[in-house]
Amino acid sequence: VSDRSSLGLGPGIEFDLIRRIADRLGPRARGLGDDCALLQVGQTTLAVSTDLSVEGVHFRREWLTPTEIGWRAAASALSDLAAEGATPIGLMASVGVPPDAGEGNLESIMEGVGDAAVAAGASVSGGDLSAAPVWTIDVTVFGTAERPVRRDGALAGDSVWVTGELGGARAALKRWLSGEAPAKAARQAFAHPMPRITAGLRLARAGARAMIDLSDGLAGDAGHLAAASGKAVVIDLERLPIHPDVEAMARELGTSSEQFAALGGEDYELLAVMPPGFTEREAHDFTAATGVALRRIGTVETGSGARFRDDDTLVRLAGYDHFA
Amino acid sequence: VSDRSSLGLGPGIEFDLIRRIADRLGPRARGLGDDCALLQVGQTTLAVSTDLSVEGVHFRREWLTPTEIGWRAAASALSDLAAEGATPIGLMASVGVPPDAGEGNLESIMEGVGDAAVAAGASVSGGDLSAAPVWTIDVTVFGTAERPVRRDGALAGDSVWVTGELGGARAALKRWLSGEAPAKAARQAFAHPMPRITAGLRLARAGARAMIDLSDGLAGDAGHLAAASGKAVVIDLERLPIHPDVEAMARELGTSSEQFAALGGEDYELLAVMPPGFTEREAHDFTAATGVALRRIGTVETGSGARFRDDDTLVRLAGYDHFA
Repeated sequence: VSDRSSLGLGPGIEFDLIRRIADRLGPRARGLGDDCALLQVGQTTLAVSTDLSVEGVHFRREWLTPTEIGWRAAASALSDLAAEGATPIGLMASVGVPPDAGEGNLESIMEGVGDAAVAAGASVSGGDLSAAPVWTIDVTVFGTAERPVRRDGALAGDSVWVTGELGGARAALKRWLSGEAPAKAARQAFAHPMPRITAGLRLARAGARAMIDLSDGLAGDAGHLAAASGKAVVIDLERLPIHPDVEAMARELGTSSEQFAALGGEDYELLAVMPPGFTEREAHDFTAATGVALRRIGTVETGSGARFRDDDTLVRLAGYDHFA
Repeated sequence: VSDRSSLGLGPGIEFDLIRRIADRLGPRARGLGDDCALLQVGQTTLAVSTDLSVEGVHFRREWLTPTEIGWRAAASALSDLAAEGATPIGLMASVGVPPDAGEGNLESIMEGVGDAAVAAGASVSGGDLSAAPVWTIDVTVFGTAERPVRRDGALAGDSVWVTGELGGARAALKRWLSGEAPAKAARQAFAHPMPRITAGLRLARAGARAMIDLSDGLAGDAGHLAAASGKAVVIDLERLPIHPDVEAMARELGTSSEQFAALGGEDYELLAVMPPGFTEREAHDFTAATGVALRRIGTVETGSGARFRDDDTLVRLAGYDHFA
């Protein structure tokens, strides 16, 4: 990253803090601001990413089983490797254990972390434990990347694609926050996201120019990719693949399913920018090989920012911010 | 580690938890229980370690400046690379930021992390931020190891050495806990420990059979090394190099300086087991080259556990436990 004070991140309080840290660190920090850090180890490029999950901020104990808490914490970090087109090799998990942890829950959380690691082809390599006020799980993942895909390579004329379905995790969250139980599929989207490891690797091999995983929501994450690439990412809202439990929730909130889904954080799907040669035919082959849906939702244009088109009208959407 | 249920760790609540996690994870975890995880990346051995620092458990805000909080959190993780004989290449830092963080303190903590990284020849590669109830800093360090030194290689007849001086950090901690200000040098030992990177690398090259860094205190850590090696580590208390601020504190507490220092956690010095060919002459050359003192404090014998000899009497000492 050449311009340290912008770092290619979109707007938001958390991203302002990251920019301020990068300014203060100067040359003591290198390569901040993408899904993964890249470290050269001999002939191999190592991709590394960290994700911190804090009880009361990222989840509540009443919503998830301990195994799900662990799975989700590890999956969110593994998802960053997927967005880099990297192959996971291991992870480190640090857990802060609260005074009212309860018998056996630490082991169950770590079991969820281990399940997510194994599902991604890796294993738990180590970690640390400490007493803490609330459950605090920090997972650092590392993988190898033959062809790492950054956020900054999108070119005007490229097409924009997304895996899976959007808005399910947000639909579950909204239900919980209003004291209701979420629908089963929405709950699963929140509690048990699947890091798109094979999908990310295949998109990288298919020539992906830029990729990011959807942790802050499409609106925010498309903004990061646009900022890093110095281009406009233009998305047709009507093309978004919508999770089946979104419609009822959006109707209750008086918004459209598409806008609800575009603002839904923590789906952990991949947003991929592909070169002109990548067509519906390649997308069909991708789905046949991976079992993961891939939908074309927009284009890259000259300009800046993430723009959302609804029936030819441009709408403004803002991403989720854990500090807001 | 072949026997997963023992993991080569000494006694303690934290280590019981780690053993229970390893039992539950089974093959989902690999190689737990040493200072670092080792991963083969192409021709290179990657050493990785994680250290979680929680406000109110590992430090208090009144004791340290934000820069010192960051330095200490990173130094404790880098110290694990030193104990592996590894060369640091980068680190990831996750920070949980409390509601009353105060303007600019996050940047200062990260500045301390960056200073420690640069002092160890590395840099900050990335990290994550979240809101949290208290300051929570998790640092994961990466390094390469040409000749990784584990805890399990000590043989009967080997000699046991320690770098620097012991007990300084504990002397500062005891002062703070009784509401007093620690002496300047003791405060520095607690607030600004120096990871023994060059020393660890040189000891590895000199043929170290086993190494561990002193984070839980000599009594606890010598116990881990003894358990991992399946040998007895016998230490002469009168040979311990004692930090100058220990004596007054030990006298007030009615204990000996040596016993106080042997129970002092977080000195981050190295305990190294060297083969018979390593003598006072090699130790002298080591100090001339590194500027770090190296003292012979004991021997490895057949048997088990860490044993401390005080005037030919065996005394029992227990290590520090963050969960006790």
